[in-house]
Parts: sequence; C-alpha cells; structure tokens
Amino acid sequence: MLATTIHAPFDIRLEDVPDPRILRPTDAVVRVTAACVCGSDLWRYRGVVPVADPSRIGHEFVGVVEEVGAEVGTVRPGDFVVAPFAYSCGVCASCRHGVQTSCVVGGYWAGPDREGNMVDGGQGEAVRVPLADGTLVALPEAPSEDLLPSVLTLTDVMGTGHHAAVRGGVHPGSTVAVVGDGAVGLCAVVAARRLGAERVVSFSRHPDRQALARRFGADDVIAARGDEGVAELRDLLGGGADVVLEAVGNLDAMEQAIAATRPGGTVGYVGVPNGIPHLSLRPLFGNNITLAGGVAPVRAYLDELLPEVLGGSIEPGLVFDLSLPLAEVTRAYEAMDRREAVKVMLRP
Amino acid sequence: MLATTIHAPFDIRLEDVPDPRILRPTDAVVRVTAACVCGSDLWRYRGVVPVADPSRIGHEFVGVVEEVGAEVGTVRPGDFVVAPFAYSCGVCASCRHGVQTSCVVGGYWAGPDREGNMVDGGQGEAVRVPLADGTLVALPEAPSEDLLPSVLTLTDVMGTGHHAAVRGGVHPGSTVAVVGDGAVGLCAVVAARRLGAERVVSFSRHPDRQALARRFGADDVIAARGDEGVAELRDLLGGGADVVLEAVGNLDAMEQAIAATRPGGTVGYVGVPNGIPHLSLRPLFGNNITLAGGVAPVRAYLDELLPEVLGGSIEPGLVFDLSLPLAEVTRAYEAMDRREAVKVMLRP
Repeated sequence: MLATTIHAPFDIRLEDVPDPRILRPTDAVVRVTAACVCGSDLWRYRGVVPVADPSRIGHEFVGVVEEVGAEVGTVRPGDFVVAPFAYSCGVCASCRHGVQTSCVVGGYWAGPDREGNMVDGGQGEAVRVPLADGTLVALPEAPSEDLLPSVLTLTDVMGTGHHAAVRGGVHPGSTVAVVGDGAVGLCAVVAARRLGAERVVSFSRHPDRQALARRFGADDVIAARGDEGVAELRDLLGGGADVVLEAVGNLDAMEQAIAATRPGGTVGYVGVPNGIPHLSLRPLFGNNITLAGGVAPVRAYLDELLPEVLGGSIEPGLVFDLSLPLAEVTRAYEAMDRREAVKVMLRP
Repeated sequence: MLATTIHAPFDIRLEDVPDPRILRPTDAVVRVTAACVCGSDLWRYRGVVPVADPSRIGHEFVGVVEEVGAEVGTVRPGDFVVAPFAYSCGVCASCRHGVQTSCVVGGYWAGPDREGNMVDGGQGEAVRVPLADGTLVALPEAPSEDLLPSVLTLTDVMGTGHHAAVRGGVHPGSTVAVVGDGAVGLCAVVAARRLGAERVVSFSRHPDRQALARRFGADDVIAARGDEGVAELRDLLGGGADVVLEAVGNLDAMEQAIAATRPGGTVGYVGVPNGIPHLSLRPLFGNNITLAGGVAPVRAYLDELLPEVLGGSIEPGLVFDLSLPLAEVTRAYEAMDRREAVKVMLRP
C-alpha cells in the first residue's frame, strides 16, 4: 500500500510500504477514508525537530475497520471509526483519569511502540491500530461527505482546542482570548463558545482566518501581536482575560498568552512547546497565573463532541480549506508550511 | 521606635527609625504584638536576592491598631488585627477576584509603594499600614497567648500553605504529596487534610519536622529526596499523587514535585521561585500536569481560616518552635538560616 514518509526536512514522499496486518489480538486494521496534515507535523517538516531516519508520518485519520484481532470487542469490520492521535488501552490509571495520552501501554502514530516497533502513520492507505478497543470510536454509520471534515477534526484539532478550553477552565461568563489562528486555535474558539464563554477574542492577522474565527463565534479579532496585541486586548476587556488559550507552541506566543491573562487567570496551552525550551516562572508566580494543558487526550472528549458534530451544532470541519488526493501529499505539506492553507485533508 | 533592617547578606540589625504616622486618610498605625521571620526573608539574608541599600525587612505581624486615618472604616484604635503579608485595596478587579497580591494599588511590606516611598517592615515595634480597610482583619478580641502563634500564621505561612492546596485543587479523595518541610510545607499538610485529602505524604528528612508533619495529619513521611524520593512515593501510592504541593522555590524541589505528580495532576506551588530561573515545559506538557499557584493572596483566606484558628480546629501555630524578643532578631535569622528552628516568633 501507499503511505507518507519523511526522509529529511522538506522531503516528504508517498511510498510503497508493506500492508498492515494484525500482529496482536488487540489490533485492528483500518482502511483510511480521510487523513490530514497537522501543524505539529511541520515541526519535523521544517527541521525544528530532527528527522533521524526516514519514517512514517501523520497522526489524524478516520476510516473503516477492515479486520480485527481475536480480543477486539468494541469495533468490527465495516465500522466507520475515528482514531484519536494517540492510541491507548482505556483501562490503566491514566486512561481512567481521562489522560489517555499518558496511557502506560499507549503511544503515538508513526512512533515506536513500547517494544520499539514502529507503528503506522495516519497519512497512508491503511493503518494497524494497536489497542483497538481503547482507541477507536465507531460511528453509528459512515458520515456524509458534508460531515466528514468535522468528524476528522475529532482526531486532533477539535479535541485539542477543546482540551485547551477545558484545562483553561472556560465556563459560562469567562472572558477568553485565543493566541494562534491555526486549526487548533480556531477550534479553541468553537470550544470556548460552546463552554459558555461570555466573550471570545481571537488574535489573528490573516483575513481568511479572522473571518473563520468570527464564524466560529469570536466576538473580536485583534491583528496586532506581542505587547501591542496585549494592550489592545486589555483595552477591549478592561484588563487581561480570565482564560487565554495558547495554540502555537513558541515562546512569543506563550509570553503573549501569559501577558494577556488577568491575575489569577489561566493559560490553557496545547501548542507543542518545541519552540519553548525554557519558561520563566516569574510572571506566572507574581500574578498567580495557572499554566494548564498539554498533549490533548482527545479520546476523552469523543463521547461528548461526536454527537454535536453529527448533529451539526458545531462545524469544526470548516478549518479544512484544501482537500487533496493522498498522491499530492507533498503539495499538502507545502500549502501548510506556506500558510496557504489552514488545514489540508488528504483522501487516499 | 525600633525596627529590623538588613544592610547586607547576614547583616541584620535592630535600629532606631522614625515612628510611623498616618500619611494618608486610608492609613492605620498598628503597634506590633508579634512578628516573625519568614523563609522568604532568607533569600535576601543569604544574598540570593541582592540587598541594594540598607532597608526594612519582615512582612508578618499582628498587633493592635493605634491610630487610623479619616477614611478608615473597618478597624479602629484598640482593635487586634491580622495583617496579611501584602496590603491591598479590597475593591479593584484583582482584589475582587481574590488575588489581592495583584492589587493595582497594593504592595508588600518593606518595599516601595506605588509612589516609590518605602513602606514599613513587619519586624518592628509599629507599622504604618496603607489601605487599612482592604488589608487588616480585626479579631473580636485579642487572642490568648495560646492562640497567638496560630493567629500569626495567618499573616503568611498558613494562608500560603492553604493557597497551595486550593490552587492545587485538593478535594475530598485527593492523594497529596508535600515537597518542603518548612513552615509553609507543614501548613500545606494542615490545609490538605482540612480540604479532605484522602492521603497526605510529606517529604522530610528532619525528625522534628517529620513529627510535626504527622501531627498535622500526614499519613506518611518520606525522607528521601529527588528521584529516590519520587520512587518511594510511587511505591506508596501506586503512582504519582493527584496533587503535589511545592513549598520551597528551587529547581530541585520543583522538578521533584513535577515528577511526583500523576499524569493529569496538579503542582500547587507557593515557594518563591528565586531558585528557578527557568523551567522546562516538556514534562508538564507531556503528562498534562497543571502548574498552579503563586504569591499567596492570604487576605482572601482570612475569613475562612480565622474562625478555625480561633476555634482551635487547626493549630498551625505549632510551626513556631522558637520565640525571641525583637531585640534578638539577629539570633532569630541565624536560627532560621541554620535550620535550628522551623519558624521564629519575635515579640517587641
């Protein structure tokens, strides 16, 4: 079958790889209906995170179960399933605490499993899914083409934006600012609105993304960044926001997020902090600003968010502004890297 | 009158200074009944935080109101009052959010006020208290000598330990570990127990402090530090603690606290992070560990904690293991610095 691999920075290829097969009785094999490129894939694409050897890439996919191992009980061949960006057992202490990304036997797509064997990436024609019962969530039926993009966001960006808002403690009446106008930041706007935020402010300087932020429920959009952006926010709100959602992962964004938070407020951060080697605690300590977040356990939120997507009350799939056949995956990375697209869907 | 000053590292003096007087109509003058030396005073004493010029020191005191300005309405001469370690207006947005330490017109004892005038320190015979209405809390009557130490802890260490537990999210059923066996760490044990923690583990290698931790409600005490201490904790609890309270403020303690927290748990930190220039976000992000805390708004907790102290249901005053006349303040600092005393009370 065909799958995406990365060989070096800016060197993305679609290659023939062995077909996935059941290796353990808890595995499933899923034929990919749709996948996508994530902002976090760009860390390796751009060489910020080193690429050691050619390896599979991609961690967001939905598809149809083709085969299951003998111990798999919750999904069966023919089921349309959502795969969170981490696989997890569903029964260990971390999974029970709703932190499936810290599952003691789980892991990430396109990375090594606990025995050191590489797990498939999501940007391919099919995927072997370990721990299928803990990982996959089956839909009642395959979604329509209209709903497919929103369902696909539940593998990562919508769940991640939601995680920022949950960890940030957004609740009815909160004032919320969102740093980052990528797909996760935009989904964080959806999440904040959905959790009852009284006012949502998005930082964005791109007209298309500004428009989408407003469509998702942002009351205000601030184009300025850094100190200037924070000053505008403070003017708007009469002070810092109760909650600031950080969906970038570099130091400028984090410092802006902290500066935009009122004393006693919370930064909910979900941007992979590859661009934040170290952080000074001083501004957090001095103003009692909580730093909450991390790699989102999107599996934990599927039961809550999936019905809303299927019912159409939220439409996070609007973040996809480009859809390409898997054969054009190289073009997909280029479009993301150049910010020509917010988010690219890939169809095998 | 006499007041304590610091001239250089390890150079603490008791000196004649001008008597405090009402400068603004919102001021009060308080005659100090008891004060104390704080672990955080040792940052300057030890030269970790530079001492620029000779300056007043001390931020914990209780006493009797001697005089009030024309606009002071909540306390009057003769009232026995508790002074939180920060003064605050009580009406700005931060004060209303319960973050009085970020009051827009407030500040700290022995530091400059918003106009650059130095405010009195607490380790003296009397103190001018700015913003008396927002700052001071009057008791129904002067406390007995027995209760005095516990009342004195409400100026800082008990409120600070409580803040760690509140920000850490301790609730009935929580497993809690406490890093730091100084007065704040010990008070954090009191606070965690009081908030319903199911199990409280104290890290301490000093027999006296271990005994006090147990008296305050610690179920277990671990003498080992660092990785070894964390391993012992994980054995005890079958994993990390839901909440770890950090009451030291150096990098070793913070890293131990983070490592001792279960995925999805919270570090409630109140140790002044002078010993933590920068922190890596990686372990926090990867395991969704929330970092919550900061300089404690102890004023916010007085209404809740004072009745319990006066009723005797909590006895945080047991942290005082040495009481000296103010004239021996030099000896008080030495005893704290050498860890011969957990906490020293000073009586003018």
